[in-house]
Amino acid sequence: MYREGLLGSGSRDVTVYTSSLKDDAEIFRETILAMMVHLNELERLGAVPGESAARIRGVLRRAAAEGIGGGDGYEDVHEYLEARLIEELGPEGGWVGLGRSRNDHVATAIRLRLRRLMLLLARDVAELRDALLRRAIDLGEELMIGSTHKQPAQVTTLGHYLLGLDELSGDFLSTLLSNYCLVNKSPLGSGALAGSMVGADRGREAGELGFVGVVENTVYATGSRYFALSTASSVVAYLTEAGRFLNNLQMWLMPQLSYVDVDPKHLATSSIMPHKRNPATVEVMRARIGEAIGHLTAMYSILRPLEVGYELDLQEATRHLWEVMGIAMESTRMLADVVRGLKVNSPAVSRDLSAFPVTAAETAEKLSLEESIPFRQAHRAVAESIKKREFRGLDPAAVVRGKRSMGAPATMIESARRRLEQVEKFKLAVDSMLKAVSDVEDEVLGGSG
Amino acid sequence: MYREGLLGSGSRDVTVYTSSLKDDAEIFRETILAMMVHLNELERLGAVPGESAARIRGVLRRAAAEGIGGGDGYEDVHEYLEARLIEELGPEGGWVGLGRSRNDHVATAIRLRLRRLMLLLARDVAELRDALLRRAIDLGEELMIGSTHKQPAQVTTLGHYLLGLDELSGDFLSTLLSNYCLVNKSPLGSGALAGSMVGADRGREAGELGFVGVVENTVYATGSRYFALSTASSVVAYLTEAGRFLNNLQMWLMPQLSYVDVDPKHLATSSIMPHKRNPATVEVMRARIGEAIGHLTAMYSILRPLEVGYELDLQEATRHLWEVMGIAMESTRMLADVVRGLKVNSPAVSRDLSAFPVTAAETAEKLSLEESIPFRQAHRAVAESIKKREFRGLDPAAVVRGKRSMGAPATMIESARRRLEQVEKFKLAVDSMLKAVSDVEDEVLGGSG
Amino acid sequence: MYREGLLGSGSRDVTVYTSSLKDDAEIFRETILAMMVHLNELERLGAVPGESAARIRGVLRRAAAEGIGGGDGYEDVHEYLEARLIEELGPEGGWVGLGRSRNDHVATAIRLRLRRLMLLLARDVAELRDALLRRAIDLGEELMIGSTHKQPAQVTTLGHYLLGLDELSGDFLSTLLSNYCLVNKSPLGSGALAGSMVGADRGREAGELGFVGVVENTVYATGSRYFALSTASSVVAYLTEAGRFLNNLQMWLMPQLSYVDVDPKHLATSSIMPHKRNPATVEVMRARIGEAIGHLTAMYSILRPLEVGYELDLQEATRHLWEVMGIAMESTRMLADVVRGLKVNSPAVSRDLSAFPVTAAETAEKLSLEESIPFRQAHRAVAESIKKREFRGLDPAAVVRGKRSMGAPATMIESARRRLEQVEKFKLAVDSMLKAVSDVEDEVLGGSG
Amino acid sequence: MYREGLLGSGSRDVTVYTSSLKDDAEIFRETILAMMVHLNELERLGAVPGESAARIRGVLRRAAAEGIGGGDGYEDVHEYLEARLIEELGPEGGWVGLGRSRNDHVATAIRLRLRRLMLLLARDVAELRDALLRRAIDLGEELMIGSTHKQPAQVTTLGHYLLGLDELSGDFLSTLLSNYCLVNKSPLGSGALAGSMVGADRGREAGELGFVGVVENTVYATGSRYFALSTASSVVAYLTEAGRFLNNLQMWLMPQLSYVDVDPKHLATSSIMPHKRNPATVEVMRARIGEAIGHLTAMYSILRPLEVGYELDLQEATRHLWEVMGIAMESTRMLADVVRGLKVNSPAVSRDLSAFPVTAAETAEKLSLEESIPFRQAHRAVAESIKKREFRGLDPAAVVRGKRSMGAPATMIESARRRLEQVEKFKLAVDSMLKAVSDVEDEVLGGSG
Repeated sequence: MYREGLLGSGSRDVTVYTSSLKDDAEIFRETILAMMVHLNELERLGAVPGESAARIRGVLRRAAAEGIGGGDGYEDVHEYLEARLIEELGPEGGWVGLGRSRNDHVATAIRLRLRRLMLLLARDVAELRDALLRRAIDLGEELMIGSTHKQPAQVTTLGHYLLGLDELSGDFLSTLLSNYCLVNKSPLGSGALAGSMVGADRGREAGELGFVGVVENTVYATGSRYFALSTASSVVAYLTEAGRFLNNLQMWLMPQLSYVDVDPKHLATSSIMPHKRNPATVEVMRARIGEAIGHLTAMYSILRPLEVGYELDLQEATRHLWEVMGIAMESTRMLADVVRGLKVNSPAVSRDLSAFPVTAAETAEKLSLEESIPFRQAHRAVAESIKKREFRGLDPAAVVRGKRSMGAPATMIESARRRLEQVEKFKLAVDSMLKAVSDVEDEVLGGSG
Repeated sequence: MYREGLLGSGSRDVTVYTSSLKDDAEIFRETILAMMVHLNELERLGAVPGESAARIRGVLRRAAAEGIGGGDGYEDVHEYLEARLIEELGPEGGWVGLGRSRNDHVATAIRLRLRRLMLLLARDVAELRDALLRRAIDLGEELMIGSTHKQPAQVTTLGHYLLGLDELSGDFLSTLLSNYCLVNKSPLGSGALAGSMVGADRGREAGELGFVGVVENTVYATGSRYFALSTASSVVAYLTEAGRFLNNLQMWLMPQLSYVDVDPKHLATSSIMPHKRNPATVEVMRARIGEAIGHLTAMYSILRPLEVGYELDLQEATRHLWEVMGIAMESTRMLADVVRGLKVNSPAVSRDLSAFPVTAAETAEKLSLEESIPFRQAHRAVAESIKKREFRGLDPAAVVRGKRSMGAPATMIESARRRLEQVEKFKLAVDSMLKAVSDVEDEVLGGSG
Repeated sequence: MYREGLLGSGSRDVTVYTSSLKDDAEIFRETILAMMVHLNELERLGAVPGESAARIRGVLRRAAAEGIGGGDGYEDVHEYLEARLIEELGPEGGWVGLGRSRNDHVATAIRLRLRRLMLLLARDVAELRDALLRRAIDLGEELMIGSTHKQPAQVTTLGHYLLGLDELSGDFLSTLLSNYCLVNKSPLGSGALAGSMVGADRGREAGELGFVGVVENTVYATGSRYFALSTASSVVAYLTEAGRFLNNLQMWLMPQLSYVDVDPKHLATSSIMPHKRNPATVEVMRARIGEAIGHLTAMYSILRPLEVGYELDLQEATRHLWEVMGIAMESTRMLADVVRGLKVNSPAVSRDLSAFPVTAAETAEKLSLEESIPFRQAHRAVAESIKKREFRGLDPAAVVRGKRSMGAPATMIESARRRLEQVEKFKLAVDSMLKAVSDVEDEVLGGSG
Repeated sequence: MYREGLLGSGSRDVTVYTSSLKDDAEIFRETILAMMVHLNELERLGAVPGESAARIRGVLRRAAAEGIGGGDGYEDVHEYLEARLIEELGPEGGWVGLGRSRNDHVATAIRLRLRRLMLLLARDVAELRDALLRRAIDLGEELMIGSTHKQPAQVTTLGHYLLGLDELSGDFLSTLLSNYCLVNKSPLGSGALAGSMVGADRGREAGELGFVGVVENTVYATGSRYFALSTASSVVAYLTEAGRFLNNLQMWLMPQLSYVDVDPKHLATSSIMPHKRNPATVEVMRARIGEAIGHLTAMYSILRPLEVGYELDLQEATRHLWEVMGIAMESTRMLADVVRGLKVNSPAVSRDLSAFPVTAAETAEKLSLEESIPFRQAHRAVAESIKKREFRGLDPAAVVRGKRSMGAPATMIESARRRLEQVEKFKLAVDSMLKAVSDVEDEVLGGSG
């Protein structure tokens, strides 16, 4: 539709190749939200006749309710919607294009969609924390062999591990919220690049959409995807680090160790080897986190050749943002489910607590402290006793109880209880943010025309 | 189905999360091919009753013809097919699981699929070469401003550029064929990891599938994806380097330069700025190549944590292989289409040949050669004449004609003609390879039971 | 030294291969800081005799002053320092190993180093903002052709571009500070994984090092590199987006455009083509940002296969963190230098403001508003007038002046002045943070023993 | 030096920032080789006086012998060498710049260097294969527990694993040689982009340098790095897949498994936990392969924004190529060393062969074959017997012996012996290629002037 005047009609195969319509399904509702608010502003400015505005709103509301249908042959959701307006209303439908560009509208829609997904992800991560903390409390007394370099290192508890993952998740939530503040700003009214002459009040538009601020500079507002890149980067950093816990789960589930059990629904067997109990969920989750790294790299690669300002390449980057967010939400929920069913297999842990000198460090420390000999000598003496197979260790449970310094396993339960309260408050806060966002969006779509 | 005996029934959400069935649509036919050939071998060995084998073949042939239907709730295409067999034939359908594993069957199916895609890609790249060479011949006399550092550097021809891309494409085809030899080997009969006791003749199975060899080691055959990683790496290296030509196209299409024209179907305009002639196809293609880098990174990331031998993570890697191949084929075809419509805008080129001292290098060379003064002095003298705006250059057309050394623009047309003959032969060779592969596969599916 | 008791002596080539000593030069001083503070705590607890502690401090202070020397043959800086202590003090030097692990000490040292680099980077980014804002104010009235899709799009000012980059930089600083809060927490006292029995007060140690908090969980404190990954990710996201401005600079410096000039020191010429004015600084900076993406990918790749808890792989990740930070600081400073010398070449801009219909959007808007016809019709009318070469545009300067909505070019100078004040305050704040960090570290190293 | 005429003098800090001189140390000798051969050609053409050529050769030979010294302040090795020539010989030294560009010379030098490194890597991989095959033969009878999903799967031998890695290495060598053919072609004589007027016989130059062909197109020859990207991609694909074996080694070295032993020099212990036997070499090697992925990503990222033809960004890509090659050579050698000392800990393997039902697949197969019941029923029966803890397996050694089909463990030793002969021949072939390359290069440097 847009191209006819200058370029004549296009060709079907090229349009299919360059169209973003399929991907735009993800931001269909949000695109309509941006259109509606912009239209409201045009009406307030007297730029568009009130009756036209009302009729356009009516069509857009129906479109929002019906969802995106076919639409093959359009460049994107913007052209699709405008064509639909013109089809239903005649030329009057063309008012919707005044004073805006697809550049500012798509940036607005992506930010609207992303802010919601970020809140949903925050909710999912909070639920994961909830699962971790409750499980840590329940498993508080259960010993576990702590490892470094994939080798038995020191005795600790499973709760200790779970709280480590919880602390990571808390750290992530603070960076996620920091990015939320970047995302939750409005680019609406920036036009193609340099604003428009219709004189829209960008602050008023931002307020109507529930944004807490405005992306001020119109070049930056329309052409940058920093908000998306920074968010995706932060999410992928979290997933990558959290994903290391999956390696622990897989290791602990090795039949030779059997330190933990998970719900059998998270296992799968072999079609040829009837004894296999493969940790299917854990492996798929780990792989999907690997995919998230790939999607982030795609975003980086796409952006590199571009000048500041919109280029069509940007439309291909967005799907990787959604993939990253989708992987994050799904993985977090699935991991919480795994954690909720996690159990320590105490006989197996006890067996290996006896079999391996996991209190060697503490034995050397005790020797150094009690005999007042420099630690390096004590360390060497213990090493030699181990080499000669003469090592006698300490009682693992006593060792765990004996460490009361901050962050040690013996302090876990009180710490977990404290954090659980914080997580409860956090969930309420996110819920109210989600509600606020939903209310404001519903009002835009549902208000009388 | 597989899990019932050991693990009991699963849960729907976990099965959906861990299932590869949706992705397996890409290798549905190939999985059936592997099953059929393995079944034929079992029958030849007398391990499966002939009548059972015949009935199983019948069901599999129908499945191949009908395509993958719903199948929700299965772990993958293998379980789906075996369940279908048992549903239709009763326990007899369960013979299909003998002496094989999903590990060797999926590796076989991926290789079957990939070898076909590699031949199709080779065909597409050959067509691109055809387009480049023909266009180079047609545009042989048209001058173009050659650039380095995004600045006018030396006068050349557009054909010179096109032949550079052609030479790159030829180099790529040689590495693609080298990888094809790795891919076109059979892992069938390797079982889960360590072979099976049924005594399948792996060479006979390979031959029936038209593989030129056998992946000998059964650990390597089932657990490695080197063939896929090496192929995808090679394809992405080509796309990345070829993608630089897109930057040239976008630069040449800048209105300030206007050195070339493309078919308007490859342009799009703005919904707000009616004068824009954006190179939509070129931008999308460039972005999609960026995505291919992301997909390759996903493959790398997925493989890193895995031991040798199959882990479920591998199933998540495969979709990125198909994405890379799909992007490569589509981009190559689309680029060929752009090239076929490429024209030099000679007035614009002439304008800038006059405006910029693009024969400065040759002027300095001439000065050095004719006056026999060391080149560095000649270079400096020309630099100073440019600085003082006293530079008088040579005739660009004469400069181009004057360079007859290998690979210079003046030698392009003869070179292009020579290469065109090679490409013709190459296309015939690939076509016959494709036909051979199709014949052998059709025979497996269509032979009497 | 450590290995003798259990493993016997090592081999030179393997030690060289696995040693981090060369890389540890980056954290030599910080490692000593961690050792000193831990030693102080041991003394306070009465675990180490006061006189031994005093002598150890003396050696460590000298080591800090002298810097890392040879040290070939050690596994890392920790072994190097402890060996030096024992060499100088005899067995007494071995007290330094009590109640600590290389795992918690190296994590402490990396965080100490990184927090300083983050503050230095924040300072550099603030200086870049200063340069951008001052240049924007100075160039406030100078028109520039704004582009999308590498094509003239709308008229704007160079200041508009500079303020876009400034807003991005401000957004980045907010995420950088958010990450700073994660980094500036103490892992000291966490031992290898599960704490130690010496009973160190981890909060007291953290305070002595000027950390604002403690990484509570000892598994997380010693084995995680999330703080590094999150920071590096954030930095690389900024660099990638900011790097797009380099593409603009290179485009604007094309002789065919010549919209801007930079200081000639940032250009280089060709050894064969005496007329070339290649934007060397811009190209190298762009490439170095590409390298930063590679370094981040290395970090991701290294972490993927690791369980929670320390593995030696982590030591190889750290150098990529320093590379990312180094590239960021250097690039930011170099870009500020380029910006400070940036000039608009007004005659060239004016030429192309006339040559290209860059007010087409505004012309269509005006038509729609003044004639009250739906925008789509106005857009088409203008498109057709352009096609027929009958288009008459508006006065570019008037168009720029006419847009007063938030973020439009006409509002730039006031906005720049406002932001400049904020940046000044920010610089003071960072300076005082840097001073506080330096003071606390100097006190540790310089206090009486 | 080059810049004076047009741009005036530069600034020290910018020159340091943009200079490649430090990196050029890697290609110092190769750059001189390119210069010498080009000079010889200029002399043959009569373009440079014979006496000048002789004197220049003398200086270059001395430079090659002395190595690169300081040279601070030069843009790169080319300027450094030309400046040295002029310093020693006066203006006559400036003849060396005639008819060449840094663009073709650096491409030549990189290819010369890379081809040597590729041959050295091929040699290292052949040595690794030698180690793998000999070890496989020696360990031929030693059982090992084969795993999938990190769980005991089927009984096999360690030799089976080693031959899997060997087959991978063989596959890699075939792609490496395919890339060698791309690399070993000459770009010399291509000038900056469009050739030069001096009329150099590019084939003659290529022959003098021992290249087997010419990169024909001069744009492609000077501006492309496809040869480097394709080679690095292929190497990293191999490293990534081979690196999975490191995960196996680390797993097998877990004290809970202890299936293998390595030479203690490849282990390290903890400074706090005296019992630790950490697989230091394996972990560092795995991390370094992760770094290689990062370096490859850097190359991809750097190339994306560039047009065809040289841009300065390319100089920053080269160091990542050397890093990839260095990591590959070092890792391959270190892995060979680990393999040579690898032993099976048979008691531990026997213990777990009894403890886990690793012959379940074969038991089900046997049941199916002997009782002639469909495999799925047999599989289920065995699964249920395992669930009820009533499973009685087969003799593991008999199972291994019983599988005689291609690639199964029982066929390993004969296969290893056959391959060892091929590897011997391959090593001789690579040695003679290396000698040929060295001879031709020495002749260029050492021939009389």
